[in-house]
Amino acid sequence: MQLLEERIQKDGIVKEGNVLKVDSFLNHQMDVKLFKEIGKEFKRLFGNEEITKILTIEASGIGIACIVAEFFDVPVVFAKKSKSKNIDGAVYTSKVVSFTHNKTYDVIVSKKFLNENDKVLLIDDFLANGNAMKGLIEIVKLANAKLIGAGIVIEKGFQKGGAELREAGIHLESLAIIDDMDETTGKITFRKQ
Amino acid sequence: MQLLEERIQKDGIVKEGNVLKVDSFLNHQMDVKLFKEIGKEFKRLFGNEEITKILTIEASGIGIACIVAEFFDVPVVFAKKSKSKNIDGAVYTSKVVSFTHNKTYDVIVSKKFLNENDKVLLIDDFLANGNAMKGLIEIVKLANAKLIGAGIVIEKGFQKGGAELREAGIHLESLAIIDDMDETTGKITFRKQ
Repeated sequence: MQLLEERIQKDGIVKEGNVLKVDSFLNHQMDVKLFKEIGKEFKRLFGNEEITKILTIEASGIGIACIVAEFFDVPVVFAKKSKSKNIDGAVYTSKVVSFTHNKTYDVIVSKKFLNENDKVLLIDDFLANGNAMKGLIEIVKLANAKLIGAGIVIEKGFQKGGAELREAGIHLESLAIIDDMDETTGKITFRKQ
Repeated sequence: MQLLEERIQKDGIVKEGNVLKVDSFLNHQMDVKLFKEIGKEFKRLFGNEEITKILTIEASGIGIACIVAEFFDVPVVFAKKSKSKNIDGAVYTSKVVSFTHNKTYDVIVSKKFLNENDKVLLIDDFLANGNAMKGLIEIVKLANAKLIGAGIVIEKGFQKGGAELREAGIHLESLAIIDDMDETTGKITFRKQ
């Protein structure tokens, strides 16, 4: 997605440890106008599929998922990262290792909001090693729901998540795939799509 | 807001400890269509003000804030609840006591995304004791930005947050104010607005 690649090139900052900071428009400050273009693009890519629900994970996936959901006219469910007082009763649980936060946590979704009749599109801001996505896929499986596909804003193509998900036959669409980034020059190389 | 009160009455569940579960449409599963009506209403209530940025707090405020932001055509910034690898450099910090999670945490906003030129509308899903709001107001002050007001979806009118914020002269608009709720009968009483 041309507009997105240009924005990453312009405002993304490459930091050591394979970190790409896009917090000025994607996951701390959020450019909702850009999110609308992202929603439009996911609608183009998944518009032929029947989708009943969008599933994402807190926190930075939520804003994008909500704007994307406007284009599909479905509710969003976000997986929560820890058990809070407000969640009770039956939940689906999976474990996720966080690259960003360097720890393992449980993600949970209430059984009330995902079941065997759901056709689920996963949405998230980043795909690197794919741990969050694998956690969400596990939850879709536990719910006996149908996984339609996964829409990612930025995939780090030099990490294994994308390749593994595609190999597993999942319909994965990443709007920008970074094949290489250099923290000394700041150069970001996108995969041709 | 009639539509919201009806939805709370229909789908909200009153639990012991003054907990109102609205996780089927507000803060776990999210009814994005309802969010659009909420956005429209906040636009009606704050539409005469100049606003440059919407500030919310992760996680459940983010979705609502993004949909509201579409009506104001401004970016959203969400305060983060803990220091992650992806945030560096200068941040504004305040401390928040969470009613839901029963603990104190730091909330942080990068100094890059809030400054003395900003006119800020705060948005959140719930207002009870007002701790999250006070944390966000503190951050607006630290940034020397102008606080335009606060838009809340559901205020628990029987807890002190709303009264304190109004007393402090803050333009607070809560779309539904609950004056009483009874966990045995499930009855919810709304304040007439």
